[in-house]
Amino acid sequence: MKKFMNTAATMVAESLEGFVRAHDRLVVFGSGDKFIRRRNLKPGKVALISGGGAGHEPMHVGFVGAGMLDAACTGHIFCSPTPGQIIAAIEACDGGAGCLLIVKNYDGDVMNFEMAAEMVAARHRVETVFVRDDLDGGGSARSHGARGVAGTLIIEKILGAAAEEGADLDRLKALGDGLYSRVRSMGVALRGVTVPETERQTFVLDAGEIEMGVGIHGEPGRFRAPFANADAILARMSDAIIADLPANGRNAALLFVNGFGGTPVSELYLAYNATRRFAEEIGLTIARSLVGTYVTSLDMAGLSVTIALLDDEELRLWDGPVHTAALNW
Amino acid sequence: MKKFMNTAATMVAESLEGFVRAHDRLVVFGSGDKFIRRRNLKPGKVALISGGGAGHEPMHVGFVGAGMLDAACTGHIFCSPTPGQIIAAIEACDGGAGCLLIVKNYDGDVMNFEMAAEMVAARHRVETVFVRDDLDGGGSARSHGARGVAGTLIIEKILGAAAEEGADLDRLKALGDGLYSRVRSMGVALRGVTVPETERQTFVLDAGEIEMGVGIHGEPGRFRAPFANADAILARMSDAIIADLPANGRNAALLFVNGFGGTPVSELYLAYNATRRFAEEIGLTIARSLVGTYVTSLDMAGLSVTIALLDDEELRLWDGPVHTAALNW
Repeated sequence: MKKFMNTAATMVAESLEGFVRAHDRLVVFGSGDKFIRRRNLKPGKVALISGGGAGHEPMHVGFVGAGMLDAACTGHIFCSPTPGQIIAAIEACDGGAGCLLIVKNYDGDVMNFEMAAEMVAARHRVETVFVRDDLDGGGSARSHGARGVAGTLIIEKILGAAAEEGADLDRLKALGDGLYSRVRSMGVALRGVTVPETERQTFVLDAGEIEMGVGIHGEPGRFRAPFANADAILARMSDAIIADLPANGRNAALLFVNGFGGTPVSELYLAYNATRRFAEEIGLTIARSLVGTYVTSLDMAGLSVTIALLDDEELRLWDGPVHTAALNW
Repeated sequence: MKKFMNTAATMVAESLEGFVRAHDRLVVFGSGDKFIRRRNLKPGKVALISGGGAGHEPMHVGFVGAGMLDAACTGHIFCSPTPGQIIAAIEACDGGAGCLLIVKNYDGDVMNFEMAAEMVAARHRVETVFVRDDLDGGGSARSHGARGVAGTLIIEKILGAAAEEGADLDRLKALGDGLYSRVRSMGVALRGVTVPETERQTFVLDAGEIEMGVGIHGEPGRFRAPFANADAILARMSDAIIADLPANGRNAALLFVNGFGGTPVSELYLAYNATRRFAEEIGLTIARSLVGTYVTSLDMAGLSVTIALLDDEELRLWDGPVHTAALNW
């Protein structure tokens, strides 16, 4: 296993330090490096806070900035941040309008974010939106119910725009919960994840195999399939995603093809092209697109497809200005 | 070799089609898919055109848009675009103010861009800026002199901003040539490139080896070294780059850490952190930073470091607004 690292124990801290130095106009460390927050907090605004294990970069630190998150808490690789980190972020960012936590649905994250919310309840009004966009996950020992994967970006962008415009905590909570049934993702891996601490791959695929329905923590997927051409893989994923979305002719679709960390940009665009064709054949209108490496699993080769069915107001919020390291428009 | 592709013969075309569909507010195909151009050309402006082999995405197509390139011509994987493609782009984009070609210094690219410039000389005023930012390359059979690698992005951004502001062809040519000695890059690979047509890696590294001084076409580097920790690798690269730059206390540095396609974002930020520390220890002032996957070599695991010494005017142009798929601020 070759990685650009010094020691497994320090790699997350060194990488985050690099991130903050590279983007020092946008972000700063808070409370002794417990979290990364937006450099200029906006008075009167509901604070949006997310976080999770390291290894998913640029999520969530790359989503901190105007129009998206106020702070992101990063744990060790694939491990939840501690309640102490989350409490520090809430205390630093809540200016009185309350705080919305955006939490991917994994046991560790759910437990620590809930514990933090409880512990500050006397001093801060806190609501939580859980992200459960993954098609699969029911069978995984690491999660109950669907997991939060690449769709997290879409939720954080839309809620971030609404918060920036002045939406209150109840409105943000309702907007986030309302998106739940209309954001669906599925992942596929061509090569598993090498975890720095163990220097081993969490699952090993041979030259003729792919893993369908993978999450972002190196856990096995729903099933192993023979390697096939891109059209065959993407048709299968598109079908599964679209079958799980509500039938709703009024909604336009946002199509998001996300690389897991080890996938070249050219392949992501090829996959986007195939997926868009299949989605349009089924009758979806692709109103917005995002293609890139945003929600990763260290060096895993593979990608996820997310389709979100959005109403006009949600599309408007998606289009709203955002100034973060990873999304900027 | 597992890639998201259908056939090696169609993968470039399918990927470019996906790119144009995903970014249809920014770009369109020109002249029967011979090139990708900015959707809304700006009247009176010098046309900036670049291009090269496929396999380096998002370069150059991701740099087409307001404030950067007017058109990009893409060849087959690691092969130059044809003179016919380049001529078509010149004819479509030159509105009378002339055309600046930005060409990475590889035999095939140089030959085809020069041939195109000659063939349109009676009808279009054309100048060329050659990019030769790679420290190494003198010994490679594929190039004469230093090659154009990640520093190309910096040249295209600065010239793009100047062109957008109305700089004329002579001014742009002088600005580009003036940057030559102050933009230097070096690359390192942890894993070689798998070329789709051959399904083979162009060079194979074992678990304890890295390739120092690599280019972006799968050609071998300057020398093979034992794998080492990030600080050791980046110190060696920083030293080599800084030694090759002119001593000039007045200039501020732009530090650009670029992933080659298979390198996780977290490792790029860790490498940036180490490089920035070394550069500052030597006395450089890092005034601007860029970290990400921009100039790639298919799925190669590795990265390049580029340092550009810029004067105040060049820094201002670097900061100027840009609206492309890959750079947007």
